Amino acid sequence: MPRQGVQVSAGELAERFGLVLRGDPARLIGGVGTLAGAGPDALSFLANPKYRGQLAATRAGLVVVRERDADAYAGDVLVARDPYVAYARIASLFEPAPGQAPGIHPSAVVHAQARIDPGASIGPLATVGAGSRIDAGATVGPGCVIGEDCVVGAGSTLVARVTLVRRVTLGQRVLVHPGAVLGADGFGLALDRSQDEPHWIKVPQLGGVRVGDDCEIGANTTIDRGALEDTVLEHDVRLDNQIQIAHNVHVGAHTAMAGCVAVAGSTRIGRYCMIGGAAGIAGHLEICDRVVVTAMTLVTHSIREPGEYSSGTPLMDSRSWRRNAVRFKQLDALARRVGASPKDTE
Amino acid sequence: MPRQGVQVSAGELAERFGLVLRGDPARLIGGVGTLAGAGPDALSFLANPKYRGQLAATRAGLVVVRERDADAYAGDVLVARDPYVAYARIASLFEPAPGQAPGIHPSAVVHAQARIDPGASIGPLATVGAGSRIDAGATVGPGCVIGEDCVVGAGSTLVARVTLVRRVTLGQRVLVHPGAVLGADGFGLALDRSQDEPHWIKVPQLGGVRVGDDCEIGANTTIDRGALEDTVLEHDVRLDNQIQIAHNVHVGAHTAMAGCVAVAGSTRIGRYCMIGGAAGIAGHLEICDRVVVTAMTLVTHSIREPGEYSSGTPLMDSRSWRRNAVRFKQLDALARRVGASPKDTE
Amino acid sequence: MPRQGVQVSAGELAERFGLVLRGDPARLIGGVGTLAGAGPDALSFLANPKYRGQLAATRAGLVVVRERDADAYAGDVLVARDPYVAYARIASLFEPAPGQAPGIHPSAVVHAQARIDPGASIGPLATVGAGSRIDAGATVGPGCVIGEDCVVGAGSTLVARVTLVRRVTLGQRVLVHPGAVLGADGFGLALDRSQDEPHWIKVPQLGGVRVGDDCEIGANTTIDRGALEDTVLEHDVRLDNQIQIAHNVHVGAHTAMAGCVAVAGSTRIGRYCMIGGAAGIAGHLEICDRVVVTAMTLVTHSIREPGEYSSGTPLMDSRSWRRNAVRFKQLDALARRVGASPKDTE
Repeated sequence: MPRQGVQVSAGELAERFGLVLRGDPARLIGGVGTLAGAGPDALSFLANPKYRGQLAATRAGLVVVRERDADAYAGDVLVARDPYVAYARIASLFEPAPGQAPGIHPSAVVHAQARIDPGASIGPLATVGAGSRIDAGATVGPGCVIGEDCVVGAGSTLVARVTLVRRVTLGQRVLVHPGAVLGADGFGLALDRSQDEPHWIKVPQLGGVRVGDDCEIGANTTIDRGALEDTVLEHDVRLDNQIQIAHNVHVGAHTAMAGCVAVAGSTRIGRYCMIGGAAGIAGHLEICDRVVVTAMTLVTHSIREPGEYSSGTPLMDSRSWRRNAVRFKQLDALARRVGASPKDTE
Repeated sequence: MPRQGVQVSAGELAERFGLVLRGDPARLIGGVGTLAGAGPDALSFLANPKYRGQLAATRAGLVVVRERDADAYAGDVLVARDPYVAYARIASLFEPAPGQAPGIHPSAVVHAQARIDPGASIGPLATVGAGSRIDAGATVGPGCVIGEDCVVGAGSTLVARVTLVRRVTLGQRVLVHPGAVLGADGFGLALDRSQDEPHWIKVPQLGGVRVGDDCEIGANTTIDRGALEDTVLEHDVRLDNQIQIAHNVHVGAHTAMAGCVAVAGSTRIGRYCMIGGAAGIAGHLEICDRVVVTAMTLVTHSIREPGEYSSGTPLMDSRSWRRNAVRFKQLDALARRVGASPKDTE
Repeated sequence: MPRQGVQVSAGELAERFGLVLRGDPARLIGGVGTLAGAGPDALSFLANPKYRGQLAATRAGLVVVRERDADAYAGDVLVARDPYVAYARIASLFEPAPGQAPGIHPSAVVHAQARIDPGASIGPLATVGAGSRIDAGATVGPGCVIGEDCVVGAGSTLVARVTLVRRVTLGQRVLVHPGAVLGADGFGLALDRSQDEPHWIKVPQLGGVRVGDDCEIGANTTIDRGALEDTVLEHDVRLDNQIQIAHNVHVGAHTAMAGCVAVAGSTRIGRYCMIGGAAGIAGHLEICDRVVVTAMTLVTHSIREPGEYSSGTPLMDSRSWRRNAVRFKQLDALARRVGASPKDTE
């Protein structure tokens, strides 16, 4: 699967990535693999100590290891302070780059008032609306829809079938995966009770979405535009698939969220947070920097101390679960019976 | 961001929306903003009493307030019974309307047996299938796919990249956001055990989807068509992003659901319900009118009384959470120890 | 809604599907319906004993029943060992088959290095990239994007607006619903701490996605490609809408998942598992064959015994819920007070 025909010598890898080589600098590496799967012409890595035992059996031609693991492998090694980071950089050499040539595919529909840099690539069957701008080195993949007044910054990539609805500004080197929708209307409603049958009135969503440099946005993730101000992702925010970011949310730099997280409106999340899969964060909260939220936790109040937070109950076989879960309804009564006040939490 | 160049006098706003003006009727308003952000040519509003303190410092030229707050602001005010509803109506004046002209874009692919009203707009790279009908004033945005036997009612808008698979009927003034998929097959399977290796047989999904007038359907939301009868949304149902509505669900008028809700098959939800974000509702249930379900709650049985319902556990730091959560497995034993019967719920 | 004009005699249905007819073999059946809704020219079925009472009132011309229910209906019956399976097969006769003719629609964009079988159908405004192959009888519906190095096996159908990003191989008779994204980058990140402001490095995702024969993949479901090895669905896996399958997950044959399930990276799920709606499964776990997970359960450890598993708390009115939920924070203290050790789980 790696790019056909690329071969790099161990010596060149050491020099290029600032690593220490113990072994033959002339050894040619043509790809990467797991410790279990890599052959003699491939590079592998040991980052998680739990796989240390696999060093004995690996057939990898070259392994990236920490200093303390270097002697555990009889073959050639590259010594790195952070083998996973070093591996990530090296592996990118072997990644097939689909490489769309600059220019506008004849099947694309570009509005006369859109500005496409000559160094940008607009793929087949994409559309770009009035007042939008696609910068140099940016790629708008097949089937993307760019609406009005959007900016795709230099070197950014919309892989395919991405929608930027309106007033969405992407910084540089932003990567957006298929099916993502940025800039749809936030969910703003007011209940009009002036008639016999009260009904919803739509609150206009006049803001936009601003995404900083080096962000990544997963497949089928949605980021709504703000009601009055913008919805904001600072730089280097990393969102997995099927995440929902409501209007006027602000996400701090370097924060990462796993798949299926939902963040309600106007919540502000700090920098270097890590939000576990399918977690929910209620609206109008403040989450400080360096907060970790575990999977499927519901955050219902602001968090002012860095650290890890959870909610939920443990996994059980359903028979045990039913027996215990029914008692959850008695919890207050049980506590009273043993004389605890509802205010005693420890 | 509001529409360029629109200016309306305070007197005209008062008259048009039936509000009482205290201030200069000739003052020109050119946009809307938050109390903190609005300048002298913009209108703001005070709906939530917690922002009352901001009235002192706002620079807004005109503020929509309740009668009881009118004296708290030294500047000009519009007095409304429901300032948020009044604001929503006024703000729509300043919303840029992308305004697609009627007609079929030359890049759209329309089946010979589709009927497009001359007053409808079919955007670039959209497709409309056989037996489908697009009514006057309806907009089918760029990249939409309308399959067979669908109806898009008068004044409805499919923003972009919406899919109506088959037998989907939208009423009037329905708004559907990008990535939504209406009318995909419901998830119907029968396990065929007649062979050594039992396998799934697909149950044909012969129904459709019917969506009433004035509904809104969020980005990447999915609504499957029914197995034999239709999946139904009555009028003025409001669905946020990434909601899943399974086959044969029936949602009553004026019900609103926040992002990421999942409703399983054949469940019937009443009118004026409000379902919190990422809540789940099991299949084959009946939920009566005016039920509120809090975020991430799982509804496992029918609800016959209006009111608010919840499940889940509170947020804690993970160390405290682990210590307490492990005890959930002992809950039945603890209750027995203190002499409570599993039937005693209060 | 069923296919116009198809009529089949009761005798032919009995013979074709190996069922026993009690009634008139010449009776013509022109559609299917529920017991409550079917008329005299339609077939219905009784699978769930809870609907047995409806037999008395049904107007259906023919009903598929179990032997033990055959005498409960005065009209004509087809006797089947599994009425739901028999119904599913019969109903497919009445399903309108949109039937795209083979060939490439003139508006589709097919790369010169893609191979399209003359018996395949490529719909309007679809794209097929370099190195991809579409086999005989396969349908690529309107607006689909097939990237590089993909295979769509014989008889498979991508309904509309499906994206296969790169290195995705579908077996035969696979059905993929609109908005699904297969083969997007897995979510692999390494935190580079070598600079003052640590930042994320993307880990290249060099694997693919392999989907076995007879799988079904729901609307807006996402399946990422693997980091080094492939993400794999064995044959006859059935995924509902809005499911997220992370990189390197392996799903065993005949496993079915309801809507909105999320499976984190590298988890291995067995055969004949049934995962309830919106359940979450953490990464790097092993789930054995024939495991049932109830709706909205979070699976945090490997499961080695077949059976049913759950987590969560019961639904309550919010007032009761609040009173009890606050006590969850005292659970460990309460247990200590009554003298239980945290290790005593039963």
